[in-house]
Amino acid sequence: MLRLGVALYKDFELLDVYGPLEMFGSLGEDIQIVTIAEEAGPVASTQGPKTVAEESFASAPQLDLLLVPGGIGTVPELDNPAYLEFLRDREREAQTVMSVCSGSALLARAGLLDGKRATSNKMFFSLATSQSDAVEWVEAARWVADGKMVTSSGVSAGTDMALAVIADLFGEERAEQVAAYTEYQSHKDPNADPFVAYLNQGALADA
Amino acid sequence: MLRLGVALYKDFELLDVYGPLEMFGSLGEDIQIVTIAEEAGPVASTQGPKTVAEESFASAPQLDLLLVPGGIGTVPELDNPAYLEFLRDREREAQTVMSVCSGSALLARAGLLDGKRATSNKMFFSLATSQSDAVEWVEAARWVADGKMVTSSGVSAGTDMALAVIADLFGEERAEQVAAYTEYQSHKDPNADPFVAYLNQGALADA
Repeated sequence: MLRLGVALYKDFELLDVYGPLEMFGSLGEDIQIVTIAEEAGPVASTQGPKTVAEESFASAPQLDLLLVPGGIGTVPELDNPAYLEFLRDREREAQTVMSVCSGSALLARAGLLDGKRATSNKMFFSLATSQSDAVEWVEAARWVADGKMVTSSGVSAGTDMALAVIADLFGEERAEQVAAYTEYQSHKDPNADPFVAYLNQGALADA
Repeated sequence: MLRLGVALYKDFELLDVYGPLEMFGSLGEDIQIVTIAEEAGPVASTQGPKTVAEESFASAPQLDLLLVPGGIGTVPELDNPAYLEFLRDREREAQTVMSVCSGSALLARAGLLDGKRATSNKMFFSLATSQSDAVEWVEAARWVADGKMVTSSGVSAGTDMALAVIADLFGEERAEQVAAYTEYQSHKDPNADPFVAYLNQGALADA
């Protein structure tokens, strides 16, 4: 059994969290999901709905896998030493650290992507790249795996990344079973990224 | 501004709720999302994470749109008169009622699909069809719209259904903007359903 922790913060993007958690959660007893925030209790998403963080940064158990979501709440967290320190602490013990969307800006700010290849959401790509010059930022990628760090592009890309990580951990057949169960037509080529056409065109994000 | 209510219950499937809420939530001030359950408070998903229901069935405000998720918790709710009565009450006032996955079994049990075309998740399709013979069940469909009732297939299909409803309500261009913002490659043909290959093969669901 592997334990997956998601590091929530106010104004996280809903699907950044729940696309991956649906896929990992479909592994049944092979995975335990732990919701975590600086303080335990309800955490509001950008879209409104609140998720209960069962554990605080202080109380969270050892984690095998760590998920860092994006969202408009990324910006204030970039200046929250407690959040960045939690990422640094848990990266050491984790076998895989995943980010979705602007979550990679937080990993870069924490210094955890220096010397590595990484990506981020397309419309606000510069939010990530401005955090560190020591990262090899990859513009056109659905997700990028480099050692234990796996960063994905915006929102929905996290779901594809999750299935790729599941394939690595549990085998391709298991990942196919999860995709079939969730009726998800996954994108398996990490380099196929039609959304790079929107690179840094954040104004379009005002959907 | 339209108000979208999601009718939660214990052991709802995460992505059944959060795929659609990500898409509707990206409409900004044009939508208000209300989380609802029989009693207000935290509601645990099949996968573990809990969502806070801000309103009870009794306290929920008028709803323009209603979302009914699926999940393993569907089975006990089929025999919960309070849940079925809530669906019947709110269907009358809503302009659109949506279901994902086994959520259509609940709508059928409540009698709200009689005389209409509808679909459900593929692996457990018979759970839906066994609720009513007066529904024209469509096996091969990503989603089916019939009047105000829009039912979708399993889990991920709800996200495509949500974008189709957004296109109906706010126009195709707006739906495209939401899909681009969320980096989602949507499936626009409601009749393209590769997962019908798994019809009633629920044993595979033990991913």
